[in-house]
Amino acid sequence: MTQQAHDPAINGAAGKSFTVGALAQRLGAAVEGPESLVVSGLNALDLAGPTDISFIGSDSYAARWVESKALAAAVTQDLIVPGHDANRRALLRVPNADLALAELLTLFAPVGSPVRPGIHPDATVDPTANIDESAAIGARVTIAAGCRIGARTVIEPGVQIGSDVVIGDDCTIRAGVVIRERCVLGHRVSIHPNSVIGSDGFGYRPDGRGGMQKLPHIGIVEIHDDVEIGSCTTIDRAKFGKTVIGAHTKIDNLVQIGHNVRIGRCCVLASQTGLAGTVVVEDYCQLGAKSGVADHRRLGAGARLAAMTGVHKDIEAGAEVVGAPATDRRLFWQIQAALRKLPELVRTVARLEQQERRSGEDSDPA
Amino acid sequence: MTQQAHDPAINGAAGKSFTVGALAQRLGAAVEGPESLVVSGLNALDLAGPTDISFIGSDSYAARWVESKALAAAVTQDLIVPGHDANRRALLRVPNADLALAELLTLFAPVGSPVRPGIHPDATVDPTANIDESAAIGARVTIAAGCRIGARTVIEPGVQIGSDVVIGDDCTIRAGVVIRERCVLGHRVSIHPNSVIGSDGFGYRPDGRGGMQKLPHIGIVEIHDDVEIGSCTTIDRAKFGKTVIGAHTKIDNLVQIGHNVRIGRCCVLASQTGLAGTVVVEDYCQLGAKSGVADHRRLGAGARLAAMTGVHKDIEAGAEVVGAPATDRRLFWQIQAALRKLPELVRTVARLEQQERRSGEDSDPA
Amino acid sequence: MTQQAHDPAINGAAGKSFTVGALAQRLGAAVEGPESLVVSGLNALDLAGPTDISFIGSDSYAARWVESKALAAAVTQDLIVPGHDANRRALLRVPNADLALAELLTLFAPVGSPVRPGIHPDATVDPTANIDESAAIGARVTIAAGCRIGARTVIEPGVQIGSDVVIGDDCTIRAGVVIRERCVLGHRVSIHPNSVIGSDGFGYRPDGRGGMQKLPHIGIVEIHDDVEIGSCTTIDRAKFGKTVIGAHTKIDNLVQIGHNVRIGRCCVLASQTGLAGTVVVEDYCQLGAKSGVADHRRLGAGARLAAMTGVHKDIEAGAEVVGAPATDRRLFWQIQAALRKLPELVRTVARLEQQERRSGEDSDPA
Repeated sequence: MTQQAHDPAINGAAGKSFTVGALAQRLGAAVEGPESLVVSGLNALDLAGPTDISFIGSDSYAARWVESKALAAAVTQDLIVPGHDANRRALLRVPNADLALAELLTLFAPVGSPVRPGIHPDATVDPTANIDESAAIGARVTIAAGCRIGARTVIEPGVQIGSDVVIGDDCTIRAGVVIRERCVLGHRVSIHPNSVIGSDGFGYRPDGRGGMQKLPHIGIVEIHDDVEIGSCTTIDRAKFGKTVIGAHTKIDNLVQIGHNVRIGRCCVLASQTGLAGTVVVEDYCQLGAKSGVADHRRLGAGARLAAMTGVHKDIEAGAEVVGAPATDRRLFWQIQAALRKLPELVRTVARLEQQERRSGEDSDPA
Repeated sequence: MTQQAHDPAINGAAGKSFTVGALAQRLGAAVEGPESLVVSGLNALDLAGPTDISFIGSDSYAARWVESKALAAAVTQDLIVPGHDANRRALLRVPNADLALAELLTLFAPVGSPVRPGIHPDATVDPTANIDESAAIGARVTIAAGCRIGARTVIEPGVQIGSDVVIGDDCTIRAGVVIRERCVLGHRVSIHPNSVIGSDGFGYRPDGRGGMQKLPHIGIVEIHDDVEIGSCTTIDRAKFGKTVIGAHTKIDNLVQIGHNVRIGRCCVLASQTGLAGTVVVEDYCQLGAKSGVADHRRLGAGARLAAMTGVHKDIEAGAEVVGAPATDRRLFWQIQAALRKLPELVRTVARLEQQERRSGEDSDPA
Repeated sequence: MTQQAHDPAINGAAGKSFTVGALAQRLGAAVEGPESLVVSGLNALDLAGPTDISFIGSDSYAARWVESKALAAAVTQDLIVPGHDANRRALLRVPNADLALAELLTLFAPVGSPVRPGIHPDATVDPTANIDESAAIGARVTIAAGCRIGARTVIEPGVQIGSDVVIGDDCTIRAGVVIRERCVLGHRVSIHPNSVIGSDGFGYRPDGRGGMQKLPHIGIVEIHDDVEIGSCTTIDRAKFGKTVIGAHTKIDNLVQIGHNVRIGRCCVLASQTGLAGTVVVEDYCQLGAKSGVADHRRLGAGARLAAMTGVHKDIEAGAEVVGAPATDRRLFWQIQAALRKLPELVRTVARLEQQERRSGEDSDPA
């Protein structure tokens, strides 16, 4: 039954299983229950099935243990878990259930991309391209002249790579991604499906005849090590020089990065964020979903934008801002609280004004 | 002349034509004019050509009938249509012109995808994949190991499908869509071009060395029956368990759905909306364009978000909210009205304060 | 060394070089320095290498000339450039450094797409399609029945074109673009990677059984001459008739254009903007990033929306609006200034009210 060999547990375990004892050893956990139980998946308490491990990080989760179908759970050390039957199920006592979860996710994660090392016969690779022999190039990939692809890098089906692109080692370029000419990617860069790297920036000048003349964009995009980029995200090439994404920076889905933007290290950009041309984002900034920064503005190191924030002035290092236009976080919420009283305030002031007018008349000597 | 066989009427009739009499029967309409006229397209009054049918749902449209080139029109029963020449053109009297329009659109809609049943010789289908023989798999499609594709489902050119994906009957997966491993689609699901289903959720933890460690996302996306998803929309797989899109829900273009989101039945999400991780949207919610919901928040059944609304707290069932942060619809518009008076209000209060100070001085016993 | 023939200068010069004398002649510049110096790239002052030309448009840039490694610079005529060594480097004096930059970018721009004229053997072109012999059709392109592709038009790898699509002369359709059936593109249209033209509009009606019935969209998208469209942008086909993008209009990345929208000439739509169904945008409008317009609304000619503006009413020709809901630009900033005083204002009014109450008690005759 070939079909069954592929039957996926919905919760993601690609045929992996571990005894409770083995998991406990991996997590450094003490076990309350049979160490011989075999766990083959990971899920939330309410979704878990009878071969799944789950996790309990608070009293409210602990209270749901009895009703859960899970076979085992990683539990924060001192939590009381009512009704646990140690003959039938196992609790793994850990110092921190969240850290244990991250560890378990890694354990149960399916092996990466199915693309195998080597160049698929249906790929089109220019003879001048230099492909490491451990790289995996999928079906219907185009790799143009002069490209260099590093060791163990995976290029999934349908990816289009322009001329002279450089991609480092251990990268994953998912299906449908387009990388235009001369862009440079470091090591361990991951790009999710249908994103576009190195399209032209958005720049025109009036052509003097009522139309607009396109400004050529002859620069590139440079993406440093350990960057991850989501799906359907667009990063424009520089007018000249480089658009730069710093090491360890993480960019979500549907994000727009304009030409000549420079993002530092370890920044986090949530989905649907947009940076206009020549924006500078210093290290460790966090940009909430749907936030936007106007062209030529700078976010100081560690600045944090709440979701939907619109920045039209430079933001100081470490500042936390909210709203459009971006406002200091504390002031923003004070204003919001006051706004809810504004209709009443208008009425109060009208009354005070009337009162004043009357008292003016009262005291009128005439 | 093969070319002419393909000559498309701009208004979309792919070679279809109907007599006025046949259309009247279909719509249950009474005809004022020749039933033998032949209609071959559908268009708005001002754009219609001499073989098109149009529609008239109000007096202002009725007034434009004389100038329109349309051959026929569906007209609401009791409207007066000045200058109609029943020798030359036809009016089809219907109880409701909008409903008739929907019916006519369906009649004139071109036959679906041109992809023919069977597997295109340029597709790459893993031998362990189970493809119904009535399914149509286009050129340059990749279908990985263990997939199941249902009856009459159409997969257009350039689609990439990861391992163990299940797709039901009568689905349409448009060009360039990427569906990653183990995702599950029900029946009659339609996904428009270049959307991405099942990419990794956006989740990291500090790695203790100044960088960030990726959290594996081992869950899936599950899409129920009769869901439609627009172009360039991204739906992330769950960290574990499922991201769920409920039956009959409709999602527009460029929408972001985070990991572990659960959307109920019959919801409508307009374009550029974004839901962060683990959001719950109950049945029959309507989310306006560019609205956003912060992670772990819940929209109660039937809640309605106006365009550009930003939700950072749970929203009650049936509530209508506007703005960012989301505000009760009535209060929002009261605040907006008051805001327009705010600059004047500031001046008034300043004057009252000055007045008070003066009257304080006047009454100063000193 | 084939590899070196492809070695790209990061700053984009694809093997192009010019003497300072030749550049000066092209720009109409007077030279301060050796005309024989050979320039092979273009970059910003701080990024430029020893064979690059840069540009100096202000005193602050002039002050950095000494430290720059650039070989030459275009300089606004009357600027004083401290420390220039005319034996070693060259300044090209021009009336306007910005215009000179545009000229230089064009000079150094790499030659366009690498796709060669003719039909790639891995493309799938229906025999009824009419492809100009000077057009370049890349690998893995699908062109369905009845299409017409004009002279010198380039279709990059992985593009999917539905039946009866018409594309004019000198167009560039980048990798991964999807154009659905019957859409019509004029001349010199440029579409960046992974955009989608002609997907179904977002329209449903209640089906009377708790679900929703899809409205067929049988119209098309018509794109006029000299339009440029960014990456991952979606333009929906009309319900019937046409969605129209007027000549010379420029649309950025990740923009949503709904069904039946009509955009005039020379408009500029920045990234992540969204137009709902049946919106009309008259000529010369400018829409800032992330702006949105509700269905059926009209922007008068030359209207300007700031970034993140939300339009829910018609906007007059020439108006400048900001915010959501859209507000006259001057009033918006007056309100913003007042908002920053609002928390204080609430306290002041509370004090005035208390004061009034006390004085009311004082004067109480009882």
